[in-house]
Amino acid sequence: MKSIEIQKIKEAADYIRYLTLETIEKAQSGHPGLPLGCSGLGAILYRYILNHYPENPEWINRDRFVLSAGHGSMLLYSLLYLSGYNISLEDIEKFRQLGSKTPGHPEYNIKNGIETTTGPLAQGFSNSVGMAIEGKMLAEKFNKKGYPLFDYTIYTLLGDGCNMEGLSYESASLAGHLGLDNLIAIYDSNSISIDGSTNITFTENVAKRYEALGWEVGFCDSTGSVESFFEKIDNLKKIEGKPKILITKTIIGNGLNKKKNTNKIHGSAAGIDEIVYFIQNSEIKNIFERKYGKESIQNREKLKEITQARVENKESLLQNKKVVLFMKQCIEDNKPIYNKWRELNLKYKKAFPKEYIKLKQFLNPSINDSMKEKFLNYTEDKPDSTRNIAGRVLNLCAEQIPQIIGGSADLASSTKANLIFSKYIEKKDFSGRNIAYGIREHAMCSINNGLALNHTMIPFSSTFLTFLDYMKPGVRLAALMKLNHIFIFSHDSFYIGEDGPTHQPIEHVNSLRLIPDIYTFRPANDIETAFSFLYFLENLNGPIAIITTRQSVMKEAYNGSFERSELYKNFKKGAYIFYETRGLKNPDIIIGASGSELGVSYKTAKLIEEKDNLMVRVISIPCLELFSKSDKTYKDFLLSNKETTFVFIEAGSHRGVDLFYDRNMILIDIQHFGESASGKELQKEYGMLCKDIYDKIRKIIH
Amino acid sequence: MKSIEIQKIKEAADYIRYLTLETIEKAQSGHPGLPLGCSGLGAILYRYILNHYPENPEWINRDRFVLSAGHGSMLLYSLLYLSGYNISLEDIEKFRQLGSKTPGHPEYNIKNGIETTTGPLAQGFSNSVGMAIEGKMLAEKFNKKGYPLFDYTIYTLLGDGCNMEGLSYESASLAGHLGLDNLIAIYDSNSISIDGSTNITFTENVAKRYEALGWEVGFCDSTGSVESFFEKIDNLKKIEGKPKILITKTIIGNGLNKKKNTNKIHGSAAGIDEIVYFIQNSEIKNIFERKYGKESIQNREKLKEITQARVENKESLLQNKKVVLFMKQCIEDNKPIYNKWRELNLKYKKAFPKEYIKLKQFLNPSINDSMKEKFLNYTEDKPDSTRNIAGRVLNLCAEQIPQIIGGSADLASSTKANLIFSKYIEKKDFSGRNIAYGIREHAMCSINNGLALNHTMIPFSSTFLTFLDYMKPGVRLAALMKLNHIFIFSHDSFYIGEDGPTHQPIEHVNSLRLIPDIYTFRPANDIETAFSFLYFLENLNGPIAIITTRQSVMKEAYNGSFERSELYKNFKKGAYIFYETRGLKNPDIIIGASGSELGVSYKTAKLIEEKDNLMVRVISIPCLELFSKSDKTYKDFLLSNKETTFVFIEAGSHRGVDLFYDRNMILIDIQHFGESASGKELQKEYGMLCKDIYDKIRKIIH
Repeated sequence: MKSIEIQKIKEAADYIRYLTLETIEKAQSGHPGLPLGCSGLGAILYRYILNHYPENPEWINRDRFVLSAGHGSMLLYSLLYLSGYNISLEDIEKFRQLGSKTPGHPEYNIKNGIETTTGPLAQGFSNSVGMAIEGKMLAEKFNKKGYPLFDYTIYTLLGDGCNMEGLSYESASLAGHLGLDNLIAIYDSNSISIDGSTNITFTENVAKRYEALGWEVGFCDSTGSVESFFEKIDNLKKIEGKPKILITKTIIGNGLNKKKNTNKIHGSAAGIDEIVYFIQNSEIKNIFERKYGKESIQNREKLKEITQARVENKESLLQNKKVVLFMKQCIEDNKPIYNKWRELNLKYKKAFPKEYIKLKQFLNPSINDSMKEKFLNYTEDKPDSTRNIAGRVLNLCAEQIPQIIGGSADLASSTKANLIFSKYIEKKDFSGRNIAYGIREHAMCSINNGLALNHTMIPFSSTFLTFLDYMKPGVRLAALMKLNHIFIFSHDSFYIGEDGPTHQPIEHVNSLRLIPDIYTFRPANDIETAFSFLYFLENLNGPIAIITTRQSVMKEAYNGSFERSELYKNFKKGAYIFYETRGLKNPDIIIGASGSELGVSYKTAKLIEEKDNLMVRVISIPCLELFSKSDKTYKDFLLSNKETTFVFIEAGSHRGVDLFYDRNMILIDIQHFGESASGKELQKEYGMLCKDIYDKIRKIIH
Repeated sequence: MKSIEIQKIKEAADYIRYLTLETIEKAQSGHPGLPLGCSGLGAILYRYILNHYPENPEWINRDRFVLSAGHGSMLLYSLLYLSGYNISLEDIEKFRQLGSKTPGHPEYNIKNGIETTTGPLAQGFSNSVGMAIEGKMLAEKFNKKGYPLFDYTIYTLLGDGCNMEGLSYESASLAGHLGLDNLIAIYDSNSISIDGSTNITFTENVAKRYEALGWEVGFCDSTGSVESFFEKIDNLKKIEGKPKILITKTIIGNGLNKKKNTNKIHGSAAGIDEIVYFIQNSEIKNIFERKYGKESIQNREKLKEITQARVENKESLLQNKKVVLFMKQCIEDNKPIYNKWRELNLKYKKAFPKEYIKLKQFLNPSINDSMKEKFLNYTEDKPDSTRNIAGRVLNLCAEQIPQIIGGSADLASSTKANLIFSKYIEKKDFSGRNIAYGIREHAMCSINNGLALNHTMIPFSSTFLTFLDYMKPGVRLAALMKLNHIFIFSHDSFYIGEDGPTHQPIEHVNSLRLIPDIYTFRPANDIETAFSFLYFLENLNGPIAIITTRQSVMKEAYNGSFERSELYKNFKKGAYIFYETRGLKNPDIIIGASGSELGVSYKTAKLIEEKDNLMVRVISIPCLELFSKSDKTYKDFLLSNKETTFVFIEAGSHRGVDLFYDRNMILIDIQHFGESASGKELQKEYGMLCKDIYDKIRKIIH
């Protein structure tokens, strides 16, 4: 065991406290409580525990550290600065400012040592579980006897808030089931949350809870000296077959006078008085004395003036070369480990050339032209539900691209998102490519986000569209981090039938569209389904949501006569002409539809042609966001002039926003909850049959 | 202790199995697994355990039963039918049909004995926690020594699915903290979920987990005889100071041949062969023999024909008078209890006339004219954030209406949704009206739904708008059940500033609008905030979402010169003219805005008037859904003719749906994630300052 220099850790811890206090005081915004409580154990982690190499933050076998309690971001930024990552003292001075490297909550940037975006509670913890699964999978896939290419550990720091969130329970339950012994959680147990002591609401036995979930639980008192923390972590690290959690008793706002151990220090600047108290009673006193003279610092009033001036004038933060020197020593200490790994990597290349090529490919997923052709030319023999089609296309993807792994929240048999050629991962056997997440939608999504962070894996998550609600926070983070994450949401709209309104998504498709940086496709047939996946694979620049049906889509939605590469070009613009009356110059009516409503739109168009002798155009709009942002010429071309009657048909809610829809437009949507009855019956009940739509259009055009 | 007639329970259990099997076979849709596994314990519950009185399902002191595992609805419908509730055999025959009393999943209808809508997993369990809190609160408020008006128990049946959901953990943790000993959960532990054995993903120690959360845990083996179930429940009932859970080992699909104990029977019809096997090997054989002759029933092939014909021709279900007689005996058995309570109620009326009047009022919340006046004339002295204003208006509501209770997910100090004159409820003291939900948004919402079900309580839930995501499934159910539930979502849009994109809601306001049966108000000032609450209180016909700001809204958003009752009349239509150029006939430009953008809209209007000498109208649109549905005349009047330039300003996402917006309309919204910086800086960065908006409008109109 390494020996730790406890006095130097104390100095580092107090310097982190200083950076935190002064920075947040200047910004008048931020959360000092956690960094003050955890600075000591943070310093031990970065200095002694992590197998990391700050000069190469992207080192694939580095130990990862995730600050799940993201509001304590000043702890992370301080540690990254001190350990020699790409974050400087000047960066810290820009804390919470526009465009800085040090935003309010940590934002995903591996190059800067930030493994994931955190802030929404328990998300980081859940990501860590994903990262641990990734570690196990990489080891299973590439490690050879004597060649432990992947043997890193995930450390994740979570607080009372994370532990109260159901997401942390879900993720911990799965981590325990899978025996993820490469995961060590550090529970910053300070017993204070925003509204006061956790006694007012959180009195469960956390240790027993984690034991019940199959975790090894350790205890550590870090309220005074943090000496034992190193040893406790070291002991936990040795335990095999289980994830581990170290319950670490800390004091929120440690180092302060009156606000210590209170909720007042959770999320607000400490105030000058507290900073003065801290300086006079901490290891930081020396650097102040050196700059301002011993006398000034011992005099409370003088020190107050100095501190006030420093904050008001936003003076540069005081440097502490001694602490920097000490903390940066982690680079030298870890150099042999890092170099040994690089040698191992080279030896591996020689000993296992095929595997090495695979590994390189694995680290750079891409789609080549021959794969692309398969998607471009994808065809089904006969009409089917898009969930079935998407299931087959997903398998095609996964056969081509080994990085694709994932599963469903106990609905694989229904959503069809299941790799039929592979098995489930399980404890001690991570060779499968399916994951049985259990009925834990939220954990599925956030664990998969964790799998996507390092770009070695491309996860897919799947459930009924209506249960998107159970995992929305994770979907949002996938979009925010632009992770390559495939969402397959099946059982769209009232068509799912008898299960009733709780299971019938109404508002969900449009809710997804509103989220920035995720594209939602509602494919209408085999071609559009294959194209949706192709669009994702070609770009690999963020998540995609593919909405599929339970029921077979109407045969009218199929049209095999399109020239595929031309069609795909237009598909990528979000919409294309699916049909138009022969010899059409200017249509009398344009019908737009997405997904399962394309068939009925086409049928209606034919009826209008036949009965009313009018010129009709049908546009398929698989992706509204893309079409809305496509160039004006293309949009004007498809939608024709303003005078043409435009009908849009979609079995989902446009409630509220339809206020602004073109007043000439006919919107046929669903703005009420569904009911328990067969999909067909509801289609009739809700006026979504061809004849209903025809009547509606006819009434308006005549 | 009552003695139970075990043979009769067996017969009842098998009759429930029969009803389930044949009904689902006819519907070719439904979930037989749970009803088959739990029919015995269900029969014991309804026959012996529940203090209920089916002739008055709304009896306020009845024991409640919640089927959290809602997919097993056939169990509930069978039990309600057999016990004499308002559900007949004919109703069961309409299982999963349009407009029936027996939809796919149970739908909230207390008159029919259905306490809440379930199906989305763990929601019913969470509702039960709310109902238990309600019981404790009513008892605390109204019970007197010797007058236990409220002493009911909540029974809730949950399965593996409910237990895997993080929501069940959150709710159980709070229930344990509050020591809700009037709550008894029955865990239907059959170890099978949709994708297979729970071994593939759910191997935690559930008993230990509940113990860790402060629950009393009992065990019961109901795989064979269900005899011990009654005793075990009876034992648990006696334990005070803790919620209790009975882990009941069952067999999914019990009574079948090959599909028993497999995932094949979870959610699909059993098939004729299995039904035949069941009939021949169960207590149901007799009623078949009576109808079809002993010989036919003993002959497998003949019975198969009979069963096939019954299913194909949708023949009426076979009656079982003996079972009905036995089960309905619960009415006679409970009559003394029910009558005793009614007498107690009358005695209470005499002994405590004042409290009795209060109780009556409590059961019928309403707002009278003098209260209404207070909201109509509500005024703040100076501009403020709408979160502060909403906090004060909420307190005004709560002072007027004693049913209002609730709180925040550990953000009361930030969202200001806190009743300042009251305290938190706690274990053994339920006299407070604030609830510290902890950082458990989902549990907050779904527990509050439970509180709202009986109309004795009007709960409020509050968190940052961005964390709506953590509780969306519950919000949807509040809307679906039209519960009187106030949602206060604070910290709207990027204006919240430094906390960064994870904390800045962008897509959320429009996401809420899309949900049927909930109205979303984004008030712009003091008046609109008070009006939003008034709108809710006047209607009491479903939930409301009130979106508030962290920052002070601009002083330009205030206008004290409106005639209030006239203004409120228009407010209820969703939009009204906030300002227009004096002497205006037809405006040149109309600017619409909601919430925090009303101020900047007014300022921009004044600039246009001044600099461009144009006629401008400003419309405030606090509720898009109401305005969209308002009558055409009013809409046309406010929005003028199509040629007038219309600008809509809102700091939220209209991504995707803006495709259909009037092509002449100028939409100024936010379709990207926010950043960490001050709200003011972001306002500039995102072109939301008056001068930016002015420039944008000017460029287009000239």
